[in-house]
Amino acid sequence: MNERSFGEDSVGFVETQYATLCEPPNELVLDSGVKLGPIDIAYETYGVLNEDKSNVILILHALSGDAHAAGWYKGARKPGWWDIAIGPGKAFDTDRYFVICSNVIGGCKGSTGPSSINPATGRPFGLDFPVVTIGDMVRVQKRLLDHLGIDSLLTVSGGSMGGMQALQWAVDYPDMVRSAIPIATTSRLSAQGIAFNEVGRQAIMADPNWNHGDYYGKIPPDAGLAVARMIGHITYLSDEGMHAKFGRRLRDKEKYGFDFSSDFEVESYLKYQGEAFIQRFDANSYLYITKAQDYFDMTNETGSLVEAFRGVKARFLVISFSSDWLFPSYQSKEIVTALRLNGVDVSYCEISSTYGHDAFLLEAGQQAILIKNFLAHTMEAVAHGR
Amino acid sequence: MNERSFGEDSVGFVETQYATLCEPPNELVLDSGVKLGPIDIAYETYGVLNEDKSNVILILHALSGDAHAAGWYKGARKPGWWDIAIGPGKAFDTDRYFVICSNVIGGCKGSTGPSSINPATGRPFGLDFPVVTIGDMVRVQKRLLDHLGIDSLLTVSGGSMGGMQALQWAVDYPDMVRSAIPIATTSRLSAQGIAFNEVGRQAIMADPNWNHGDYYGKIPPDAGLAVARMIGHITYLSDEGMHAKFGRRLRDKEKYGFDFSSDFEVESYLKYQGEAFIQRFDANSYLYITKAQDYFDMTNETGSLVEAFRGVKARFLVISFSSDWLFPSYQSKEIVTALRLNGVDVSYCEISSTYGHDAFLLEAGQQAILIKNFLAHTMEAVAHGR
Repeated sequence: MNERSFGEDSVGFVETQYATLCEPPNELVLDSGVKLGPIDIAYETYGVLNEDKSNVILILHALSGDAHAAGWYKGARKPGWWDIAIGPGKAFDTDRYFVICSNVIGGCKGSTGPSSINPATGRPFGLDFPVVTIGDMVRVQKRLLDHLGIDSLLTVSGGSMGGMQALQWAVDYPDMVRSAIPIATTSRLSAQGIAFNEVGRQAIMADPNWNHGDYYGKIPPDAGLAVARMIGHITYLSDEGMHAKFGRRLRDKEKYGFDFSSDFEVESYLKYQGEAFIQRFDANSYLYITKAQDYFDMTNETGSLVEAFRGVKARFLVISFSSDWLFPSYQSKEIVTALRLNGVDVSYCEISSTYGHDAFLLEAGQQAILIKNFLAHTMEAVAHGR
Repeated sequence: MNERSFGEDSVGFVETQYATLCEPPNELVLDSGVKLGPIDIAYETYGVLNEDKSNVILILHALSGDAHAAGWYKGARKPGWWDIAIGPGKAFDTDRYFVICSNVIGGCKGSTGPSSINPATGRPFGLDFPVVTIGDMVRVQKRLLDHLGIDSLLTVSGGSMGGMQALQWAVDYPDMVRSAIPIATTSRLSAQGIAFNEVGRQAIMADPNWNHGDYYGKIPPDAGLAVARMIGHITYLSDEGMHAKFGRRLRDKEKYGFDFSSDFEVESYLKYQGEAFIQRFDANSYLYITKAQDYFDMTNETGSLVEAFRGVKARFLVISFSSDWLFPSYQSKEIVTALRLNGVDVSYCEISSTYGHDAFLLEAGQQAILIKNFLAHTMEAVAHGR
């Protein structure tokens, strides 16, 4: 891959950068009331910051994402998680915009989280790491932008939990956010969403190797984390998508095995997903990040979504996918209605797709056109001081 | 409860009965080719067999069901699993019909399964128990009816896996089955259904106490089985039903706990379901019965559902529920279409309900009326020799 020749639409080789923020006495006060700092944040940037710093796009990742949203690490077999959407000429066009993506607090990809060293003990935090919220993630991102000298965002965008952060940004920093593109997301996690997250956490905590979160340097709770990932993965696909992709096709057999090995392709696919995930993710981070999702409810303080969006100044493009049953379209429509009732300029599109919730990671065509046009209009509005 | 006075619509106290079938040399040849016998079967009966034995209804249970479909055990706090539908004046009216329900082979409620003693070793079968299919379950039920001297069934009925058995009965014993009422079921388990079953199995097998199925007399894989049940339980409810029942209500707190105990009611509900289940179910039976579901595909031999139903003589009432996303209505409609293309007399009704897949266990009103009318017409047709 070092000899790789990139297509014209690739940002090419990238490297993750790191910033240390919230150093005492400027610790971050979390929603829980706990003070945390210093906080390391991993981030990447693509494209070039323009002179008046008006072309900044903040990309926000989902549960298992990280700062590596686009381009290639040297030697890697896969590009960043949203390479389909970020690059020259792509939805987030790096010829025009300066794109930033950072790993969330609580994560395990370079940002401070439960696997980081607790300065107070010299040992990994484990469960001593404080529970964080979507609001906390956003506060840390704000500190990162302060650190980078950026005080205006052309847009904030992400899918799933990334969309939650985009909503939170538009509410918490209305004067800083010119537009927001929440995709396949919700203004508050549903009971069903909480239930799936909780079962994933129970699977991890049921693994004896989890050891109440104290497993660093020992055998991690791989079996539990793999089960959690498998559960999650089913919810990211759709019934019709799974039917189209796997149906009832048998793995490599002529007929049923009459045992408990994998008979069906869908079984071995899921197992593969579970096993690949444990190579790259920390079980405690899975607990913390799903908990942050569970706690996400924009109506928590106001009791009403319309009230919650009262101060929003950003333009919005809201996107959902027809077969997404984890964050169904009705949840996006609730956001759209509450924004419109505040007189916010909002476009909404439900894209027809069989990919389920994962569609935001996979659908390049319509999603890219929607985002491109929306950003062009937003940039024009900014240029004309609107 | 021993002093309990029953309502007029209750079958009252009941006791489970047992039959030993398939004794050598008359073992059952399973779909896997393995010979199995003797086989113990637990069953219950309600109502009175009429003189010409024309009023027999066979009730077929779902994954976690058993022979105890109606009435009360002495001292019990809950009646049988389908007491809502079986009793004097109820859907399956025990004043008119003789109702039989038996625990499936592979189960853990009195019928031979992985927790039974293997006559060859004198120890519990564990994973030495052969993998069984829905067809095998039906074959054993046929042996039970032979044993009871019954050669005609007014109807076969059940929900979920019980509906699979009802379909299999109508196909395998067309001359014996006058009618069938498959409810909330499918003619073949979908990729999504297989996926959920597989994740449940993986949760059990990831529990070190599972020990490759050899845990009898030791600590069973309770943690894994509880996770499997929690996963299943989410699929039995609906998004809207969970929203109505739990929403984002907190358990007994004013605000978030900022820890990994249960914050939300839906979490403690799920945990309760998991913990209640491990008291009454065997983890290996969970593996075997879910595998039987995965293998269920009425098109396996013919390649076509229309072909599969070619010899069916039974009248049909097919029922599905609007919010059932585990066995969605489109799967019932496939059954209806294939039956109609064979000229079979079939009624179909999608009942509007927010209860999801579990609706067949909970909806008394419309479901009861549909079944009652259908059975009355069927009985009349039998009386007139049609």
